[in-house]
Amino acid sequence: MSKQNMIIGQSGGPTAVINSSLAGAIDYAFKENDDGIVYGMINGIQGLLDENLINLNEIFKNKPSRINRLRLTPAMYLGSCRYKLSNTDEEFERIVKVLEKYDIGYFFYIGGNDSMDTVDKLSKYTISHGIDIKVVGIPKTIDNDLVGIDHSPGFGSAAKYMALAVREVAYDTSIYAIKSVHIIEAMGRNAGWITAASALARDAGTLAPHLIYLPEIEFSVEQFVKDVREKLENYNSVIVVVSEGLKDKNGEYICVRSANEDTFGHAALSGTGAYLKSVVEKEIGCKVRSLEPSVLQRSSGHTSSLTDVMEAFNLGTVAVRAALDGETGVFSSLKRTSNTPYTVEYCTEKVSVIANAEKKVPRKWINEAGNDVTQELIEYIRPLLRGIPQVPYINGLPDYMDISHLDNKKQSYN
Amino acid sequence: MSKQNMIIGQSGGPTAVINSSLAGAIDYAFKENDDGIVYGMINGIQGLLDENLINLNEIFKNKPSRINRLRLTPAMYLGSCRYKLSNTDEEFERIVKVLEKYDIGYFFYIGGNDSMDTVDKLSKYTISHGIDIKVVGIPKTIDNDLVGIDHSPGFGSAAKYMALAVREVAYDTSIYAIKSVHIIEAMGRNAGWITAASALARDAGTLAPHLIYLPEIEFSVEQFVKDVREKLENYNSVIVVVSEGLKDKNGEYICVRSANEDTFGHAALSGTGAYLKSVVEKEIGCKVRSLEPSVLQRSSGHTSSLTDVMEAFNLGTVAVRAALDGETGVFSSLKRTSNTPYTVEYCTEKVSVIANAEKKVPRKWINEAGNDVTQELIEYIRPLLRGIPQVPYINGLPDYMDISHLDNKKQSYN
Repeated sequence: MSKQNMIIGQSGGPTAVINSSLAGAIDYAFKENDDGIVYGMINGIQGLLDENLINLNEIFKNKPSRINRLRLTPAMYLGSCRYKLSNTDEEFERIVKVLEKYDIGYFFYIGGNDSMDTVDKLSKYTISHGIDIKVVGIPKTIDNDLVGIDHSPGFGSAAKYMALAVREVAYDTSIYAIKSVHIIEAMGRNAGWITAASALARDAGTLAPHLIYLPEIEFSVEQFVKDVREKLENYNSVIVVVSEGLKDKNGEYICVRSANEDTFGHAALSGTGAYLKSVVEKEIGCKVRSLEPSVLQRSSGHTSSLTDVMEAFNLGTVAVRAALDGETGVFSSLKRTSNTPYTVEYCTEKVSVIANAEKKVPRKWINEAGNDVTQELIEYIRPLLRGIPQVPYINGLPDYMDISHLDNKKQSYN
Repeated sequence: MSKQNMIIGQSGGPTAVINSSLAGAIDYAFKENDDGIVYGMINGIQGLLDENLINLNEIFKNKPSRINRLRLTPAMYLGSCRYKLSNTDEEFERIVKVLEKYDIGYFFYIGGNDSMDTVDKLSKYTISHGIDIKVVGIPKTIDNDLVGIDHSPGFGSAAKYMALAVREVAYDTSIYAIKSVHIIEAMGRNAGWITAASALARDAGTLAPHLIYLPEIEFSVEQFVKDVREKLENYNSVIVVVSEGLKDKNGEYICVRSANEDTFGHAALSGTGAYLKSVVEKEIGCKVRSLEPSVLQRSSGHTSSLTDVMEAFNLGTVAVRAALDGETGVFSSLKRTSNTPYTVEYCTEKVSVIANAEKKVPRKWINEAGNDVTQELIEYIRPLLRGIPQVPYINGLPDYMDISHLDNKKQSYN
């Protein structure tokens, strides 16, 4: 009966539904591994190394209404870290020592490509050293760039936010009978999925966005100006959605490049929209505004997609079941078995396929001119936005789980 | 039976609930003035001068589900203009000529201070020239700076958006155990009501925003840096909300001042948040981000407050009833008769009191240090956010009224 305990952590950037995966995992663990404790790592693998853990049984066991609130609270209840494992035996030994100290037989990590790299390496280390700890990943990312899964949990809600924001900006800007251009900058450094999802805004009484530029296509400022001019011939108010990661033919970002890079070596970008705003001002001279929804697009719990919330929950469940069944070095995944009606089937995949790989928008789902997406892409994304979760409200505002435990006074300046 | 028709227009900037006032006005007109036609001015007074009108009976009469969708569609179904009347007799003659041509006896204008100025002048002109046309205003503005009314329709929804955005940003930024500062820039050039409303974010498991700076208080960059440093002693993630209209002791805006001014002589501002971001980067050196929700805070129909939607509707009703009762030169208004429980009473007020006046946040509702608001202000705003309207959704996105009639090919470059 030793090592029946579990530990779970969250890593990478936030989404609207990571906590739903956490809720699904602990809900299943409480039911099927009744004798065990589920620990949470505060601030990911960093929290494990520092033994900064919380006992999730004490907070959530036999508290279904708390689990439901957790399910609908955006961002990360356990906090995150950008810590990258050094991959030294010394570090893995330290991790295993902590896991053994707490009788932990099951390790779960909710994250994106980088986090799955951690799962991959830790599972290989435990196998090669004959240590009986199951290591299982639970995927998440707003970017939808994970391979080995039809779409990433978190993407549906970010996609919905972007479509909604573009639609409401279109309504806002339609009111004046003057020429105007609005440029909305979407997240997604290398993969243009969120940018592409803005096309879903078109369903109601608006044709916005009129132009969509993905990072998968080499960007030409000259062609952009030509495209905008052409749209202004037919519409007063032109809405353009651009990816933060647009690059020109020389591979240079269309923005002011920051000297800083994040821990994983990704360049820190900002200003694609702001730069293109200045281009329109100079070349066309009409009213122009640049909007950057920034982090609102990834942590907007009040607009989350119910489909996304439910799938994230189920992927938490599937990961725990797989680990209890003896699987390791895998992540919980889903396949789309039908689009009309939309159905999925859950499974596990080897985590090695997901780690450090990137799924981009395929060329065939981008129009020939490279300034819009195709109907097939719209049909792929549409079901992921469906459903309105019953977020609990108090005084007109969402009543999310208290996260004050995250500001735990272990302060550091970067 | 001549002059039984009505005309209604919208002016100024958009809000989430201006169309609810339109819905309330036409709904009452269809019932109580059954023989008359209600015309809509496309793009405000400009549309009237150009005879660019639509027949609202054709679109909405005996179509309750359309009126309901209109009620929940943000921005302005009839479009807006920033046209300022020249106040010449020639222009008023032109307006009256159009009104008489269409047998119009009732003129309604939904707008803010500037629009109420139009109502004031037109009503004085009709009275002094013995013309029997009733001229009535319906108030709106996200800024809550109108006098003669407890609070402005549109403010409750903008306030709710801001509180919600701050809360979700707080969740997003709480995940890393590093020091960070987020600066959120709110609309409201001279009156800090929306900035102040961010304090409502504090209800859930977050203490954000930690600092609030209103345009009513002289801003000191030095004190700001001191305040932020102090908060960083106690919290990892510090959230600051600033008004776009902050000014220093010399009356200079805390931002890069644009050379452009709008038609009404208001300076075009941008960059308070961006400027203060650079200050924090330089003086403190921790991670810092600036967010500008921009137009999303004023046209966010999906987060509108049901209280706001209903009050805006009722103010449309009250305006039409007043005009049919023979009132002119007034606007529909509301008084708060109780805060717990929250109740209001509708009335009309002379439009001359509202025109070109501005209601600012009183000093007693701002803390002594000038970097936060008091509990009384929070209690004043709280009821205005309450209630979640049943916005119709299709495919996970709000199904708003078609507004394609606004892009009517009468195109102009500013």
